[in-house]
Amino acid sequence: MSDRYDCIVIGCGPAGLSAALNLNIRNKSFLILGTKQCSHRLAKAERIDNYLGLPEISGQGLMERYLQHVRSRGIELREERVTAVYPGDGEFAVITGKSQYSARSLIIATGVHIERVLPGENEYLGKGVSYCATCDGPLFREKAVALLDYTGGAAHDEVLFLAGVAKQVYYVLPQRASTAFVHDTSAAAVATVPSLPGNTTLMRGTSLSIKGTETVSSLIVDEQEIAVDGVFILRETQKAENLVPGLATDKKAVAVNGQMETNIAGVFAAGDCTGKPYQLAKATGQGAVAALSAVGYLDKRPK
Amino acid sequence: MSDRYDCIVIGCGPAGLSAALNLNIRNKSFLILGTKQCSHRLAKAERIDNYLGLPEISGQGLMERYLQHVRSRGIELREERVTAVYPGDGEFAVITGKSQYSARSLIIATGVHIERVLPGENEYLGKGVSYCATCDGPLFREKAVALLDYTGGAAHDEVLFLAGVAKQVYYVLPQRASTAFVHDTSAAAVATVPSLPGNTTLMRGTSLSIKGTETVSSLIVDEQEIAVDGVFILRETQKAENLVPGLATDKKAVAVNGQMETNIAGVFAAGDCTGKPYQLAKATGQGAVAALSAVGYLDKRPK
Repeated sequence: MSDRYDCIVIGCGPAGLSAALNLNIRNKSFLILGTKQCSHRLAKAERIDNYLGLPEISGQGLMERYLQHVRSRGIELREERVTAVYPGDGEFAVITGKSQYSARSLIIATGVHIERVLPGENEYLGKGVSYCATCDGPLFREKAVALLDYTGGAAHDEVLFLAGVAKQVYYVLPQRASTAFVHDTSAAAVATVPSLPGNTTLMRGTSLSIKGTETVSSLIVDEQEIAVDGVFILRETQKAENLVPGLATDKKAVAVNGQMETNIAGVFAAGDCTGKPYQLAKATGQGAVAALSAVGYLDKRPK
Repeated sequence: MSDRYDCIVIGCGPAGLSAALNLNIRNKSFLILGTKQCSHRLAKAERIDNYLGLPEISGQGLMERYLQHVRSRGIELREERVTAVYPGDGEFAVITGKSQYSARSLIIATGVHIERVLPGENEYLGKGVSYCATCDGPLFREKAVALLDYTGGAAHDEVLFLAGVAKQVYYVLPQRASTAFVHDTSAAAVATVPSLPGNTTLMRGTSLSIKGTETVSSLIVDEQEIAVDGVFILRETQKAENLVPGLATDKKAVAVNGQMETNIAGVFAAGDCTGKPYQLAKATGQGAVAALSAVGYLDKRPK
C-alpha cells in the first residue's frame, strides 16, 4: 500500500504540530506521524511559563491545548513510528512499522534523541544492526535476531514480522534505557505483547551491548551472551540522520538555515532536532517556518 | 538621567514580549520600550489560526493574551520611542524621545518597516535629515526645521524640544504615509497635540519630499516648498539599521544566525525585523532564543 502526499511530517511534538497546522491552512495534503505521547519532554514538564499567551500551564495541559487545536481543524495524527526514509527522484519513501508512504517533501521534527547509543551500535550499523525490521528483516531468513524494544512494548508489528522470517527472535525489553522508558515499561508495556510467536523469547535486561567481528555475532544482555546475526533497535524516536540517508548535521543537530531547509532539497527540519536551546516557542516557530518553506518548495515544482 | 540595565528590548510586538518574558524568568534587569499599540500588524489581523494552542482568535484578542501574560509577571511596558542607539565599550546608550538609558545588551524587535522612504531621505541622512530630535536638535539652534510625525501625533515631546532650540518649527502630519497611519490620524491624532508653541506651525500634507544641495535646504509639502535646514522624521518604528550604527543587514532584514546574534556583540534581534516569513510563532520563538542568547552573553561578561 502506498499513498502519495505533498508532505510528511515526522514527529508530533510542538514543532511537528505547528508544521501540520500550517500545512493544513495552506491546503496541502500531508500525513503527520508520531508516537503515542508525541513529546516526552513536554508531557513531563511540571509548569511552563514562557509560551507567550498561555501562562502558568502544565506540560500535559499545554500539549492538550496543542492537540485540541490541530484536531479542531480535522488533522489526524497517525500513531506510526518511522523506521526509514528513502530519498528518490523528487520523492521520498517513508517506511513505518505498519506501512509505507510516499511524499514530495518531508518535515523532520523528531525531537532530541535521549537514549544513549549502545556499545557496538554505531560500529555494526549496516553490518547486522538495523533500525528497520520490515526493511532489513528479510536479510535474516533462517537466522537468529534480537529486537531491542525501547518503545515500551509498542513494537508488536515488528515482533510478528521478524518471527515470520527469522528462525529465532529474542525480544528484549530494556529496563532502564531512559527515564521516559522506565515510566512506560512494567505491566502496561508488557501487556501490549500478550502472546509471542513460538520462535520468540522474551528477555529483560538493564545492560546491553553488541559484539561481532566483521558483522554482528552476539548480543550481551547483562551477563548473558546470545548468538545473533542481526540486532534491530527500535526507539521512540530515531536520530534524524539515521532516518534520512545523507542528512547533514552540525554539533549533533540537523543542520538548517533560517528557512529551515536542510542540505537535501525538499527536506525541512524544525524543533529540538535542530539543536539548542530546547524551547517550545522556538519549536512551534520553526515548525511554522518549515511548513511555509515546504509550501514554497512544493509550489515551485511539478506535482 | 541614566539607568543601567542588563538588557533593553526595543519593540513590544510578539518577539519583544517573548524576549521580555524570558529575560524576566531568567531574573535579568531589563526595559522593554515600544509604541502604544506594540504591533500594528497583529492588531489589524482579523483572525489568526496558526498560533498553536490558541485557535481562532482575533489579532486584538491574541495581543491581549500576550500582554496579560507579561503583565501577570510584573513586566511593565514603557511607551517610549527609541530614536537612537550608541554602542560603547560593552555598553549601549539608548536614546528615546523622553529619556536616555544604558544597557549591557540589546534585543532588537522593531518589526517591519512599513513606511516608504521619502524622496531625499537617504540622500540627506546625516546632512540635515535625522531621526532623533533630542540628539541632533541642538545643531539647528536659531534655524528652521521640519518635524514629520508619522506616529499619529505621539511626537509631542519632540515638538516641544525642537521649539525650544530652533527658531522656527514646521510640525507636519503626513496624511497617507501608510494604512496604519490613516487609521491613527484624524481627530484622535490631532487631539494629542492640543497646544503648539508660538514658533511652531502645524501642517498637513499627502506628498512629501526633501530637497537640498550639500545639505538640506527645503521640504516640499504637496505643492508648497518650505525653506528648512533640518528635517526630523519620526516613525512608529525606526529601521533597525538606522537605529544601531554598523548593524549588518541581509536582503533589507537584520542579519542573524540561529542563536539570533547580529554582527555586533551584545546585540540580538528577533521577529519580523529579521526577515520573512512574518509569522507570530516565529517571532515569539526568536524572541525566546534572543533572550536566552543575551542571558548567555551577559553571564559570560563582567557586570
